[in-house]
Amino acid sequence: MKHAVVLLSGGLDSATALAIARSQGYETYALSFDYGQRHRQELDAARKIAKSLAAKEHRIIKIDNQIFSGSALTDDIDVPKSRSEKEIGAGIPVTYVPARNTIFLAHALAWAETIPAGHIFIGANAIDYSGYPDCRPEFIALFEMLANVATKAGVEGARVQIHAPLIKFSKAEIVRKAVELDVDLSLTHSCYDPLPDGRACGKCDSCQLRQKGFGEAAVTDPIKYAPVRP
Amino acid sequence: MKHAVVLLSGGLDSATALAIARSQGYETYALSFDYGQRHRQELDAARKIAKSLAAKEHRIIKIDNQIFSGSALTDDIDVPKSRSEKEIGAGIPVTYVPARNTIFLAHALAWAETIPAGHIFIGANAIDYSGYPDCRPEFIALFEMLANVATKAGVEGARVQIHAPLIKFSKAEIVRKAVELDVDLSLTHSCYDPLPDGRACGKCDSCQLRQKGFGEAAVTDPIKYAPVRP
Repeated sequence: MKHAVVLLSGGLDSATALAIARSQGYETYALSFDYGQRHRQELDAARKIAKSLAAKEHRIIKIDNQIFSGSALTDDIDVPKSRSEKEIGAGIPVTYVPARNTIFLAHALAWAETIPAGHIFIGANAIDYSGYPDCRPEFIALFEMLANVATKAGVEGARVQIHAPLIKFSKAEIVRKAVELDVDLSLTHSCYDPLPDGRACGKCDSCQLRQKGFGEAAVTDPIKYAPVRP
Repeated sequence: MKHAVVLLSGGLDSATALAIARSQGYETYALSFDYGQRHRQELDAARKIAKSLAAKEHRIIKIDNQIFSGSALTDDIDVPKSRSEKEIGAGIPVTYVPARNTIFLAHALAWAETIPAGHIFIGANAIDYSGYPDCRPEFIALFEMLANVATKAGVEGARVQIHAPLIKFSKAEIVRKAVELDVDLSLTHSCYDPLPDGRACGKCDSCQLRQKGFGEAAVTDPIKYAPVRP
């Protein structure tokens, strides 16, 4: 059986990436990170998703909180709310976390070499996304090249492939793919700034991209949102 | 003033890399990792070296011990001893730690972006070395390409450079460079498998490469070794 490490944040995209890996016949090793994110409840979502999609193993790796700073996701900086589609599409927002996917994929690579697994899946998406540089196809392609030069496995000919199956999907296409693969969307968590009771804010970039995707796919989003105030 | 993050293990090579960065006029930010290595005393060495070479700041980052396994440096696997030069030069030894430099450089990249620093120094060496794939020039070059695609800084034009000033140095040349730059070599720790009292074993690959370097440079190694038994 083919083995794959799958980065699993607990959001819609990574849950769908995990379901895709599974549907392609991989035995999956789900990998999540506790990096001091304000939306740490995504880790509970990740646990439930890993179980629901029958991951062979799920690890939550702690990232030293000295390393990520300067981001609205890790520091005391306001998460932008109610931005227009044009604003979301322009530039790299303050929710950007320095070198996050490089650190995540580097950990995935270490684990993959140990398992051993020749495949790593990441739910990165460069269409309806937040403009993060490390979600773009050129980043994924370069990391794959690096992976094969960096490791004993790569040097000895056991090629590592980085799969980003959603990279060119719209958010609506991701929702449709998730439905097709029976992902329990009620388990997924996308909000950057959830309420204390766990409901999504409905206004951060991530909530807005999610809602747009469900809307365009004509699928009802099963998660709970904070009531819209006038 | 130019800023540089410098990977500092506490060994001869990284101490020399730090001294080189300093001699080139960089304000230095030393970065070490606690990854469950059996030679954890190298972290004490790193602390002393960072201070002695006037690093502006020194951070020791904890790597989750779930991630590195299967190596003689992190697991209960014997560190090879008294190998011949030919044996040391052949293949990748069991002291290889999966994706270690990828993880280390990824953390350096995150910190560099936060400082911000446009330069990262690593003491990697591909001549008198242990055959680790992530110490080779092609790895360093690819990581630099990745760094400039992965980050906001890179995308916005603030180029990140990865410096590996020792990559083509013999161990003897590294020793000579360290002496030239007044590195206090008594502070450096290279041994993979030190005695409980801190003395170097003198027999692991790292000790042997170090001793060969000091010998060829005709410099007395100031650290203490376990007595040689017949």
